[in-house]
Amino acid sequence: MKIEAVDFFYLSMPQVTTEADGSQDALVVRVAGGGHVGWGECEAAPLPSIAAFVCPMSHGVCRPVADSVLGQRLEGPDDIARMAALVEYDSMDLLQAAHTFSGVEMAMWDLLGRARGEPVWKLLGYAASHAKTPYASQLFGDTPQETLELGRKARAKGFRAVKYGWGPIGRGAPEADADHFAAAREGIGEDGILLVDVGQIFGEDVERAALRLPALEKARATWLEEPFHASALEAYGALAARSRTVKMAGGEGAHNTFMARHLIDYGKVGYIQIDCGRIGGIGPAKKVADYAAPRGVTYVNHTFTSHLALSASLQPYAGLEGHRICEYPVAPKSLAVDLTATHLTPDANGEVRAPDAPGLAVEVSPEALRRYRVDVEIRVGGRTLYRTPEA
Amino acid sequence: MKIEAVDFFYLSMPQVTTEADGSQDALVVRVAGGGHVGWGECEAAPLPSIAAFVCPMSHGVCRPVADSVLGQRLEGPDDIARMAALVEYDSMDLLQAAHTFSGVEMAMWDLLGRARGEPVWKLLGYAASHAKTPYASQLFGDTPQETLELGRKARAKGFRAVKYGWGPIGRGAPEADADHFAAAREGIGEDGILLVDVGQIFGEDVERAALRLPALEKARATWLEEPFHASALEAYGALAARSRTVKMAGGEGAHNTFMARHLIDYGKVGYIQIDCGRIGGIGPAKKVADYAAPRGVTYVNHTFTSHLALSASLQPYAGLEGHRICEYPVAPKSLAVDLTATHLTPDANGEVRAPDAPGLAVEVSPEALRRYRVDVEIRVGGRTLYRTPEA
Repeated sequence: MKIEAVDFFYLSMPQVTTEADGSQDALVVRVAGGGHVGWGECEAAPLPSIAAFVCPMSHGVCRPVADSVLGQRLEGPDDIARMAALVEYDSMDLLQAAHTFSGVEMAMWDLLGRARGEPVWKLLGYAASHAKTPYASQLFGDTPQETLELGRKARAKGFRAVKYGWGPIGRGAPEADADHFAAAREGIGEDGILLVDVGQIFGEDVERAALRLPALEKARATWLEEPFHASALEAYGALAARSRTVKMAGGEGAHNTFMARHLIDYGKVGYIQIDCGRIGGIGPAKKVADYAAPRGVTYVNHTFTSHLALSASLQPYAGLEGHRICEYPVAPKSLAVDLTATHLTPDANGEVRAPDAPGLAVEVSPEALRRYRVDVEIRVGGRTLYRTPEA
Repeated sequence: MKIEAVDFFYLSMPQVTTEADGSQDALVVRVAGGGHVGWGECEAAPLPSIAAFVCPMSHGVCRPVADSVLGQRLEGPDDIARMAALVEYDSMDLLQAAHTFSGVEMAMWDLLGRARGEPVWKLLGYAASHAKTPYASQLFGDTPQETLELGRKARAKGFRAVKYGWGPIGRGAPEADADHFAAAREGIGEDGILLVDVGQIFGEDVERAALRLPALEKARATWLEEPFHASALEAYGALAARSRTVKMAGGEGAHNTFMARHLIDYGKVGYIQIDCGRIGGIGPAKKVADYAAPRGVTYVNHTFTSHLALSASLQPYAGLEGHRICEYPVAPKSLAVDLTATHLTPDANGEVRAPDAPGLAVEVSPEALRRYRVDVEIRVGGRTLYRTPEA
């Protein structure tokens, strides 16, 4: 078959706030070919990502993503890799291209899986889809007491693992942060898996980050996520060397496989967290999993939006039985919930897994595409390059 | 003063082809404040870059670039750095942001320099603007004979240094490439400085690149530029270790200072090439120069467009006397020539330097802004977020 159409849907909550919650808007991609349809989601700013698909060519290696996709043959995984290589080379000077292509690539896997009647993880070469332990991904409370209660609530919902992120951490004294870490441990209980995400708050300041290590170790945090700028490899490596029990985690900012490899090789992370909606889709994410596993680094998905994104993000490491932790958006905005008719709810053991059904096996709700749609029109040189399509 | 207005002008040649010539379109930025105006240029895809300035916020760290710029105080270089840090953090999930901000940042330096009556290189802390040896930057010929003649022509125009790029190199047999390298040396003469740019053609395949080393050494090439993907640090380092006389050069793809530092530290480049229109502007480029110089790595500008971009690109290393090589667009499209009323022509010694006059000291032609303008309108949710402004 050939790629006949690629449609982008920009969706948004009525109000978008400055909180670090990526589920407030969405860019959903529909790819059609050979009588089939596949769906994907960019974890990216919608308007610039649409623009990177439809923009006029600037020169030979600054072409719109559309040029590497529309009309292309899609018969198997190699075709997806071929298109990815085209985008990488022909759009090398278009920075946003990786984010745009991520959702398109995801949708191509979905389409291919549906056409073949196979789950994506099988197309990736895995024999089984193993159970993952979902962690409740939530923000720190404003006070230690709130942090404690958030932990109790997550446990009450059945989550054995809880990640706290952002909030006040790194903005005040180390002692204040220590109170939050202790409250988090108390909230999730002695046997809970505690994960901490500080959202690049320390820039590349190793000393400021290191001041938080003793309290993190005392609270038995499994990992410290994104202490630094996504590319501050030396800072990651230096902090990893000073930590006794807490591993470094990072990688969500990777927009190509090189960045993830460098976090492993130079940043010495113990957990590599990949967002399929940013790194270029499922194919490059699988490459990172292949690179991480033999090096003793654990692959983890990064997912803060819909269950379409969640299913996609589970595929690259579905077959890695020992890589069990899985980010699970515990309190996304209604947009992210309503977007899909299918939801990957934890089973009786509290575990989730990539579905054993064709493609990504998540149905997108046409009603949600209409309800949350943001109308966009882009006109360049008298021509309409983009207008929100019909759902 | 405060940043009162930021305007983007998308310009284009009537026809844009697939050749690797970045001067076929342009994104020019005008920043106004305190009764002054400054100009900059993004070396980036215009439409996605405009979109990254005006797009609605997605969440707290995926904000449009405008949010970190409009209404901000601009009294000195520290304010520019402060806004750069705001963009880096608040737009960390907006991939295109660095390309967008690059032109804005450049225009802020121009504005500040004009307001203070000082050249930008003085604001950067340099005491003098030293002469640079411009190299003619051109593509390889289709045949070795064409390559030879292109070299003779460049020498006849007064260029002692010539860079050949892209074209057939790496697409056929190593022997065919060797013929081009030998022809290039013959064309520019025994005393010419020969530079070779292969535009990432080898991906991360060190062996294929290494097959070209003997002929490059025989032709006495000073550097081999971008043999690999911009982030293929290991491949750069491996090829550098196998080369006896030819240094590696790269860095034009860097969209933050980390990427440039990693090319130096892990990629072992001998020349670090920075495009101020991509790395975030003049400030981060100066940081790269500060990092490179004490490590024995030579800073070189990357410039393939207008003399506005050329002046900006000379500022970060204007004061580094020993860093002499300078990319000089020898045959840009008429758009890039017409864009500025001022041109930095080589002096009697065939050398250029950052002008000793306020700001970037390059006047933009309002007539060119009108003649090459591409009308753009972006509407989101019923509101016009962008419409091409008056020149």
